[in-house]
Amino acid sequence: MLLTVIYIIAITAEAMTGALSAGRRSMDWFGVILIACVTALGGGTVRDVVLGHYPLTWVKHPEYLILTTCAALFTILIANWMKHLRNMFLLLDALGLIGFTIIGSQVAIEMGHGFVVAGVAGVLTGVSGGILRDILCNDVPLVFRRELYASISFAAVVFYWVCLHYINLNLEITVILTLVFGFSLRVVAIYFGLEMPKFIYKEDDESSASSTDDH
Amino acid sequence: MLLTVIYIIAITAEAMTGALSAGRRSMDWFGVILIACVTALGGGTVRDVVLGHYPLTWVKHPEYLILTTCAALFTILIANWMKHLRNMFLLLDALGLIGFTIIGSQVAIEMGHGFVVAGVAGVLTGVSGGILRDILCNDVPLVFRRELYASISFAAVVFYWVCLHYINLNLEITVILTLVFGFSLRVVAIYFGLEMPKFIYKEDDESSASSTDDH
Amino acid sequence: MLLTVIYIIAITAEAMTGALSAGRRSMDWFGVILIACVTALGGGTVRDVVLGHYPLTWVKHPEYLILTTCAALFTILIANWMKHLRNMFLLLDALGLIGFTIIGSQVAIEMGHGFVVAGVAGVLTGVSGGILRDILCNDVPLVFRRELYASISFAAVVFYWVCLHYINLNLEITVILTLVFGFSLRVVAIYFGLEMPKFIYKEDDESSASSTDDH
Repeated sequence: MLLTVIYIIAITAEAMTGALSAGRRSMDWFGVILIACVTALGGGTVRDVVLGHYPLTWVKHPEYLILTTCAALFTILIANWMKHLRNMFLLLDALGLIGFTIIGSQVAIEMGHGFVVAGVAGVLTGVSGGILRDILCNDVPLVFRRELYASISFAAVVFYWVCLHYINLNLEITVILTLVFGFSLRVVAIYFGLEMPKFIYKEDDESSASSTDDH
Repeated sequence: MLLTVIYIIAITAEAMTGALSAGRRSMDWFGVILIACVTALGGGTVRDVVLGHYPLTWVKHPEYLILTTCAALFTILIANWMKHLRNMFLLLDALGLIGFTIIGSQVAIEMGHGFVVAGVAGVLTGVSGGILRDILCNDVPLVFRRELYASISFAAVVFYWVCLHYINLNLEITVILTLVFGFSLRVVAIYFGLEMPKFIYKEDDESSASSTDDH
Repeated sequence: MLLTVIYIIAITAEAMTGALSAGRRSMDWFGVILIACVTALGGGTVRDVVLGHYPLTWVKHPEYLILTTCAALFTILIANWMKHLRNMFLLLDALGLIGFTIIGSQVAIEMGHGFVVAGVAGVLTGVSGGILRDILCNDVPLVFRRELYASISFAAVVFYWVCLHYINLNLEITVILTLVFGFSLRVVAIYFGLEMPKFIYKEDDESSASSTDDH
């Protein structure tokens, strides 16, 4: 099945980017493995917990956990060499983002949820792993600053939903079209450095800031 | 139903404070929407996940998610104008805190739990949204520093429980009395800048710090 | 039952270390109680949510929540005196780590899961409380930097599994042996300052960093 292959590529790539993040924080090997697994499998975990969709993917298929652990250890070995593969990782990460998004939406659709919940499930699956990684590494999550990252995930859900429910394409063709659509969007966004507009809010007078503000 | 009206006011107000927090961190529009939704709906989500109370509110009623998304976008539009509405927001936030607390306790009571779990459910619902917002914005959660914020949530639970189980008032009157009680407490706390006593712990000798310490 | 006694000692000790962490951040009393409860009961909560093992321990036994709350308040009272008890706390914390690990694995085993999931459940139960504490206090989780902390938790799971499934010892003896094994390992690790190897990853050229990096 195409989605399984993409899922395996995606969790491997995400585990490796997670391991690199942990390495930038000089974590020990255990921390590297944990961050890698959370980055790769955290999105699906958040989705399943929020939808009450038990058992979780990695509980049902512990082999995915072993795979991400091995990917993390492998990353430690070849870290110096990986600097030359940055572009390949960007592409794998883009593939993973769309793959995760499709899988997440599909889970919600199969549980009988409508468009809004399917959209949230897709985006959550696509971006939560990276958010959890950044929280554990004590950063402001990057996903809110990257080139159209989460927005592309959402666009992919809309595209997927339209193909499936309005154009009535079959599931396999929809998956392939959504992958091509989302992947191309992401590549274009990276290439041209496209970004969402930012919302920049500054208090006029910091000293008058009240208790609903964080500063 | 009174609680539904208060719930809708509360999630709208909380979504707007969440959006402002995101704006202070210069997040993009997607980040603003996500932080707004997490601030508004995160408390109920944490409570429902912890109590195993599925489906979650926003999964059952996706319209709430649309409402908080619109509130976030609206906040971006009127941000400059909102500085003059700070006091109104403090009051809406106070109303929301007590409304969330009552709803959270009520969910636990309806599931058959006793006072301790109902209290935790109430406080969790009231304060977790703000805690998650602060974690995502990479701050030490404000709730631990604000004027009696969480303590008032807990006081409201105690008041609610006493009215319902000891004085045997009916549900509607209990809700109204608790709202008035908690809201007044919060307004008094803000006006006089009341705070919980703080626990300040300093090591005598930083260099002797051992592995159970964080520094 | 031995495990219950150890569990009670462990949550009390963890609640007190959590309260001290909150005190270092000058939190108010409510924050101290919340951080103490999360440190003590967060590990089991994460495990139960992830495995769909409802109701959670503290929902079923709210008295544990009362115990950790009292431990937090007690810590505020005796904080100055606790500096002289650092070594005792390190030992109680080690006991707690192994106790939590055994309980976590046992829960997964009783739900019919295999070695990988039991291992994750054990380590999650052992270390997540401390990770959540550090996230709420806005630190990079310490667990990734401490002397073999999480690795000893994992080693204890392996030992436990081997005793139970390969040597076919009975449950009680396995528990005692695992406690002795893990506790000794941890004491040795603290005494000699043993650490996991660290993975340190630096970009050659920060300016060329792309959007998959966090910096």
